[in-house]
Amino acid sequence: MYNHILLIKCKDQKGLISKVTTLLFENNLNIVGMKEHVDEQNNEFYLRCEFTENANLILLKESLTRLLPEDATININPRKKKDIVIYATKEYHCLSDLLVRNYFGELNADIKCVIANHDVLKDIVEKFNIPFYFISYENKSKIEFEEELLNITNQYKPDYIVLAKFMRIISSEFVDKFENKIINIHHSFLPAFIGANPYRQAFERGVKLIGATAHFVTNNLDEGPIITQKTNNVDHSFSVEDMSKSGKEIERIVLAEALQYVFEDRVFVTGNKTVIFD
Amino acid sequence: MYNHILLIKCKDQKGLISKVTTLLFENNLNIVGMKEHVDEQNNEFYLRCEFTENANLILLKESLTRLLPEDATININPRKKKDIVIYATKEYHCLSDLLVRNYFGELNADIKCVIANHDVLKDIVEKFNIPFYFISYENKSKIEFEEELLNITNQYKPDYIVLAKFMRIISSEFVDKFENKIINIHHSFLPAFIGANPYRQAFERGVKLIGATAHFVTNNLDEGPIITQKTNNVDHSFSVEDMSKSGKEIERIVLAEALQYVFEDRVFVTGNKTVIFD
Amino acid sequence: MYNHILLIKCKDQKGLISKVTTLLFENNLNIVGMKEHVDEQNNEFYLRCEFTENANLILLKESLTRLLPEDATININPRKKKDIVIYATKEYHCLSDLLVRNYFGELNADIKCVIANHDVLKDIVEKFNIPFYFISYENKSKIEFEEELLNITNQYKPDYIVLAKFMRIISSEFVDKFENKIINIHHSFLPAFIGANPYRQAFERGVKLIGATAHFVTNNLDEGPIITQKTNNVDHSFSVEDMSKSGKEIERIVLAEALQYVFEDRVFVTGNKTVIFD
Amino acid sequence: MYNHILLIKCKDQKGLISKVTTLLFENNLNIVGMKEHVDEQNNEFYLRCEFTENANLILLKESLTRLLPEDATININPRKKKDIVIYATKEYHCLSDLLVRNYFGELNADIKCVIANHDVLKDIVEKFNIPFYFISYENKSKIEFEEELLNITNQYKPDYIVLAKFMRIISSEFVDKFENKIINIHHSFLPAFIGANPYRQAFERGVKLIGATAHFVTNNLDEGPIITQKTNNVDHSFSVEDMSKSGKEIERIVLAEALQYVFEDRVFVTGNKTVIFD
Repeated sequence: MYNHILLIKCKDQKGLISKVTTLLFENNLNIVGMKEHVDEQNNEFYLRCEFTENANLILLKESLTRLLPEDATININPRKKKDIVIYATKEYHCLSDLLVRNYFGELNADIKCVIANHDVLKDIVEKFNIPFYFISYENKSKIEFEEELLNITNQYKPDYIVLAKFMRIISSEFVDKFENKIINIHHSFLPAFIGANPYRQAFERGVKLIGATAHFVTNNLDEGPIITQKTNNVDHSFSVEDMSKSGKEIERIVLAEALQYVFEDRVFVTGNKTVIFD
Repeated sequence: MYNHILLIKCKDQKGLISKVTTLLFENNLNIVGMKEHVDEQNNEFYLRCEFTENANLILLKESLTRLLPEDATININPRKKKDIVIYATKEYHCLSDLLVRNYFGELNADIKCVIANHDVLKDIVEKFNIPFYFISYENKSKIEFEEELLNITNQYKPDYIVLAKFMRIISSEFVDKFENKIINIHHSFLPAFIGANPYRQAFERGVKLIGATAHFVTNNLDEGPIITQKTNNVDHSFSVEDMSKSGKEIERIVLAEALQYVFEDRVFVTGNKTVIFD
Repeated sequence: MYNHILLIKCKDQKGLISKVTTLLFENNLNIVGMKEHVDEQNNEFYLRCEFTENANLILLKESLTRLLPEDATININPRKKKDIVIYATKEYHCLSDLLVRNYFGELNADIKCVIANHDVLKDIVEKFNIPFYFISYENKSKIEFEEELLNITNQYKPDYIVLAKFMRIISSEFVDKFENKIINIHHSFLPAFIGANPYRQAFERGVKLIGATAHFVTNNLDEGPIITQKTNNVDHSFSVEDMSKSGKEIERIVLAEALQYVFEDRVFVTGNKTVIFD
Repeated sequence: MYNHILLIKCKDQKGLISKVTTLLFENNLNIVGMKEHVDEQNNEFYLRCEFTENANLILLKESLTRLLPEDATININPRKKKDIVIYATKEYHCLSDLLVRNYFGELNADIKCVIANHDVLKDIVEKFNIPFYFISYENKSKIEFEEELLNITNQYKPDYIVLAKFMRIISSEFVDKFENKIINIHHSFLPAFIGANPYRQAFERGVKLIGATAHFVTNNLDEGPIITQKTNNVDHSFSVEDMSKSGKEIERIVLAEALQYVFEDRVFVTGNKTVIFD
């Protein structure tokens, strides 16, 4: 028997917590963790509740729907491992971290397959007995490339797609098929550097921090709702290569932490931001 | 009209959140923030709730007492500035930070007076029009010294006593008079260094981190419930004096953060630990 | 007798360290600290050397000039407190931190005066017996405003001008008069937010980090050579005001650290970046 | 042709840098990086110099020996991958991180074999084609166990032995055979917790930081010269298991960083501390 996770988002009003918790209590459900957040500036209410006892989930959802404001979004999921598909290109640092966690059962997910637009990561993936698909984008239109990507992906019906340093820009059409289901990791700087070779720009500018941001993918490139961000210190003694290496270290850590939140159903996406009950 | 803060601690049982929030709802109180924590390992329930509307606090507390398990601790306080007394010795870094925040109204407290066992900080305190008391401990027994300390302190009926680098050990008898009301800041190292001149020990040992811990004072010296901890990086190029200076910087930051939590009624003390709703 | 700081920047070539240290040795100078950096990507050599014995500085500089490549920049300064002028507007957090450090002799600088375009900080400045000048910018052209600013500033012949939350944009003409002598502190985000009300933008975007950058002021607004950067963690529970408050805390820390480096002659400005020997 | 690393430690005296760099210059060696440190409190001089041209290393060392104070320690090593042997027990987090970095050629070392006193990590090690040895300690004396350990280790003539969560205490006799050649990683807390189950103690004590320390192993258990230390934030909502998990994350990062310094010959061990030229 799984624990269950109840996620509610709706307009805030008096008595919401009372209504919800009374209903759960009347249904004899045992709450093992509950967090709420009221966004006063936007008058929105968020709740995450984990409960243990048996429940008729369909009836429970119906009761909640009657109880809550009309705009309410209500999700009830069993707490279980998510099925994921990973897209990669050539860099191994994020991918191999996920493969190892998956292998030892600590990812809260099952990696169903890895799809890459280069074949250099085939070996490491297959060491862990995960199917690896190489889809070249040469001599193909973007539409054709994404069609292949989609066909393989859909075979596995993933809960989430993880871009573990996937260096291709995904089309709006593709993103729309997986709303709030694609997670990306990318480097971040203060200030931001637009265009090619950001680490060289960071070096030329003498930044003292190298950061990474994990976020949901929307149609604004590298601009979706942020899940996790962290930074490392660097200084003038770092070459471009040292900065890039430092960036990879922090990307690995940030992606792992973000996925932990997502796979445990701790993340709400709301507008262009997230509410995370960690 | 103040907001009010309700703090509850009791044994955990099913339906507690439902009971409390329903009661608040029935009393027509508007909850602007609520956080709970269940310590599953000790079967304890903690709740902090901030509400805005008028309430008969005596009746409310009576209702809650009837509703909750017998062991429940229930506190309802208006959200307002705390009255505090600061004890200091010679170091200015924590004290002056508090004086400045107090002067600009951002301490969430009123510093009623500063008492020191040296007079070197008199000037800076009086610049801010705060009463300064110098109590020498020379030619006095510890009992006599603390009696003087107590007499001045009691004049101001402080909600909290802040030890801003007060370099005298306080007796058990004194501590007992202010249970969970005295907050101290001290340096922390990995590993810990016992005895005199800890920064020299840290230097000789080549530590790479200098930390600080803010905690409530109990009868175990430097061992009460921890509120906040942070560390700074150091390396072999730091002299003993550099390490000490780095320690002061982090002490100032850690104490300020700890006091913010305490003065906003966000901290539960339970056994030898804290639960902090930040 | 002061220690002296020797700073050298020139094209890199074989034998530079040997030449310089042999010269210092022959002059019987006692080196108490020396750091070099070679920027291999730009073939540049940097050296900071602190020495203690008496030296004829004019002769020493002449010898170094003969010894080093033609493009070499050579500075020899006694290690002593810098004279500084602070510009401020209304926010007290950075200014008061500097006032306190100055008062206790730990700023490595003497604050000669504070100039502000509002008068709200007059009280705190005068508590510390520092001259305070209020220059309104109302009913004045930018040129007139800056002329007044310049007149007062020049009276004090400052080594550095510190913008402690000075909310006026300084003209190129003004900046040109103080090349690499003006230090500013400003908030930083990942991603960057252009335009008004950045903390609101950061809130709407749900950033997880709030940063601050201290930098030299050049003619690119908020874009000069970076000295120090740090970040604080924030989350969805932070209101716009909480984020702003967190930003102020980190600004104070970053500015203090940057000034320590600058006032100890540890910072080279080169192109649009810094080399810092910390 | 390898770069070479020159490491010097000796009593400080005037002119040391001049002497060394002049000698290198006369030998026509191209210095690509040089760092010195003077420990003024102990009057000790440290230098790390990386140079690129061909040199007769034996003659160079002889010249340096004549030039430097009698007590000088002089090492000249080609900059190349170290040969290492890893000892492990059951925990995979540090080991697998090293295996992956090794596989992609980014460890600056060659893992020659892994020896463990349990067999649960056999699979992951052999995936990467690294020899795995299981040495049970059951029905054996400590002396017998260590003899087996030593026999296998010596076959590989490692430059360093890495304890990647090896949960056996190594005898003084064993440690003495590998002075400053064994690197360990262990959890660290503020305050320290002695005895069994430190994460439970940390939980009961409500610590707000979980740290890790990488250090050389000496005959004082967990007390050798510190290489790297870092901390993660935790709070009251962390269970014992969550704290342990956070500890593992930080251990992995700290060990990887420490090994990078060691394998690039950036670390001096001196007394019970390190000097690290990062």
